[in-house]
Amino acid sequence: MPKKKFAVGVDLGGTNIKIGLVDEKGKISERVTVECCAGEGPDKVIHQIKLGIKTVLKHTDCKIIGIGIGAPGAVKLKKGTVENPPNFPGWGKIHLGNILKKEFKCDVFVENDANAAAIGELIYGTGRQLKNFVMITLGTGVGSGIICDKKIFRGETGLAGEIGHVSIDLNGRQCKCGSVGCIESYIGNSYLVERTVDSLTENKDSLIFQLTGGDLNLLTPEIIHMAAEQGDEFAKSVVIDAGVKLGAALTSVVHVLDISAFVIGGGLAGFGKLLFDAVESSLKERVMKPFKEKIIVKAAKLKNDAGIKGASALVFYKS
Amino acid sequence: MPKKKFAVGVDLGGTNIKIGLVDEKGKISERVTVECCAGEGPDKVIHQIKLGIKTVLKHTDCKIIGIGIGAPGAVKLKKGTVENPPNFPGWGKIHLGNILKKEFKCDVFVENDANAAAIGELIYGTGRQLKNFVMITLGTGVGSGIICDKKIFRGETGLAGEIGHVSIDLNGRQCKCGSVGCIESYIGNSYLVERTVDSLTENKDSLIFQLTGGDLNLLTPEIIHMAAEQGDEFAKSVVIDAGVKLGAALTSVVHVLDISAFVIGGGLAGFGKLLFDAVESSLKERVMKPFKEKIIVKAAKLKNDAGIKGASALVFYKS
Repeated sequence: MPKKKFAVGVDLGGTNIKIGLVDEKGKISERVTVECCAGEGPDKVIHQIKLGIKTVLKHTDCKIIGIGIGAPGAVKLKKGTVENPPNFPGWGKIHLGNILKKEFKCDVFVENDANAAAIGELIYGTGRQLKNFVMITLGTGVGSGIICDKKIFRGETGLAGEIGHVSIDLNGRQCKCGSVGCIESYIGNSYLVERTVDSLTENKDSLIFQLTGGDLNLLTPEIIHMAAEQGDEFAKSVVIDAGVKLGAALTSVVHVLDISAFVIGGGLAGFGKLLFDAVESSLKERVMKPFKEKIIVKAAKLKNDAGIKGASALVFYKS
Repeated sequence: MPKKKFAVGVDLGGTNIKIGLVDEKGKISERVTVECCAGEGPDKVIHQIKLGIKTVLKHTDCKIIGIGIGAPGAVKLKKGTVENPPNFPGWGKIHLGNILKKEFKCDVFVENDANAAAIGELIYGTGRQLKNFVMITLGTGVGSGIICDKKIFRGETGLAGEIGHVSIDLNGRQCKCGSVGCIESYIGNSYLVERTVDSLTENKDSLIFQLTGGDLNLLTPEIIHMAAEQGDEFAKSVVIDAGVKLGAALTSVVHVLDISAFVIGGGLAGFGKLLFDAVESSLKERVMKPFKEKIIVKAAKLKNDAGIKGASALVFYKS
């Protein structure tokens, strides 16, 4: 029997670093979460990463074939550097790849978190059956990783896939990025909540009032989802509208890339079938004829531990 | 002295086929235009192509290294097939590559016309200094070819770069493609003329009335250009508005592809500096911070004979 191959996946977040020992099938056999301590500067963060990896390796005698890291901020793949991730004060540019290579004597792959998520779905998840797809992450922001012919499409400087900033209206909402009408400015978590609160003044009988105990400051996408699940028409319309708008943005993506499959994950993906059906209908209604039959909209498979699994997938993807 | 290399470029149009003998620098030494006779069916068209190529080769004793063909419709690159080009009745799917290979005993490269134009600019034109750019053709339609790392980006089925159908308004104008708010439905030649005619009712003092002799059925983009050149404020506003809208669409393109350079050709590119400046300002205002400094908007270099040169460039690009 051939020996199982293992990799370490590191999900570098602003608050916590999640680390796991993962096999080729995406099964996590050891895991640990350590504090990131980003406020204490990069040396401390690096110390924490090393500590976490050592902890995970302590309980096993298997040899790992590499370490994968999904990181926020601008990542230079070949150099293995991570540059100025948001919420990591004083970071600058760190050669994270080299540092860990020296310490653990194995290959180290550093990738930005959106691309790591896409590679995770490609290796372990919904993307296994797809040669071409765009992995969309719906959260605070709307991010994506583009898989073209089973490979990440990076563009000129590694920033391809800023799909949250595809505009659906040249005179639309102001986005925090400085642009106008970006899809993120409609369906990014806080924007969606903000727009929902605005519309609630005209929907006084919505269940949402009950579910928030009347305090709309407590409104979250989860509460909109709960209300929709309980049949609240207004909440359902919010979810459907988000799907229609996302479908409109993705139509432009299909026309630019000639990629017709979308794998959707992240918090808002929890809206489930109501959202997915709306995205799919909006897309099928809007795309040009040659693409209509080929539209695929699927849920991401990696839910919990998507960060660890996506990061570890970098190792199996490369090797 | 090394011998000059020559290729034959074939620009397959619905009315005429333009054929030229072109050297590595894009200089055309022999040329001929033959009728396409598309209405008489594919056998006649193929006969005309062969006739044209033979005519061009008759006057030279140099050996050609290949034939390049830019064709409308769906082109399968590897197979060298051209499928159902619009305005070619009864065409179906023709193995144009194989047919010409057999006849002329040399390599034959078939490519769709938008990509051929992009490769033309890459090999002979404005794109020579650029590793990554999108070649935009502004005509009846708005087409494009995407060059990524000096290579054509084709997407899943070779249809990537349908940039005319990037939407700038999810509730905007109905486009003939079936979608909504496509940039082509604002600035494609006939759409632009139609929108201009509509706005003229509120701009009775525009020079355009004089230049069309009062018959707005005669309005063309060229007349709008003439009026703008003569200082007509309304005509200038039409050109600037087209540029702003194109810039808005291209902003989404930048965010998806991480490609920040655009080479613009085709009829409307004749609007010149007024249009180009508006496209560039609109882009710089709208793109996210990391892209702002990198935006490049340039005129295509291949103007007359862009079709022949683009087609011949396929040979030098491949070999």
